[in-house]
Amino acid sequence: MDYIIILGLVAGVCTTIAVIPQIKKSWRNKEVEDISPLMFIILVTGLSLWTVYGIIKKDIPIILTNGTSLMLNGIMLYLMMRYRKK
Amino acid sequence: MDYIIILGLVAGVCTTIAVIPQIKKSWRNKEVEDISPLMFIILVTGLSLWTVYGIIKKDIPIILTNGTSLMLNGIMLYLMMRYRKK
Repeated sequence: MDYIIILGLVAGVCTTIAVIPQIKKSWRNKEVEDISPLMFIILVTGLSLWTVYGIIKKDIPIILTNGTSLMLNGIMLYLMMRYRKK
Repeated sequence: MDYIIILGLVAGVCTTIAVIPQIKKSWRNKEVEDISPLMFIILVTGLSLWTVYGIIKKDIPIILTNGTSLMLNGIMLYLMMRYRKK
């Protein structure tokens, strides 16, 4: 496997899993006041569009990375709504 | 311009600008305690790799979206370090 493919895979894994430490922190502390809900709403919208884009183009890497990221950022959006002070 | 290209452009704009509401909120409130610094460190790492990937492959859309996102998330990482309580 040449180094460019490895570079793309590592980049994709990083940008996909980046939200996990935030999910762990919010789950543990139950505090989300400093976090912008709009950030995750726009991110989930964009990732949904990327996933549809990948499905239409039958591009497995785009579907896998953006589909996984969509799921993880969807969890974060759920935590935002659950722990937000009304 | 066919609808698939428009879909990709809108998806790219969403995932690129998503961090802007968070930058505005942190800049205004000077509060970052609920935010995970590790999320932005991993994100900036991944976006740097994607930008290098785009440069090697001479792929303008990948360079533009990930380069812009790298700059914006870099600003957010700076705000994290500046407003973090020691």
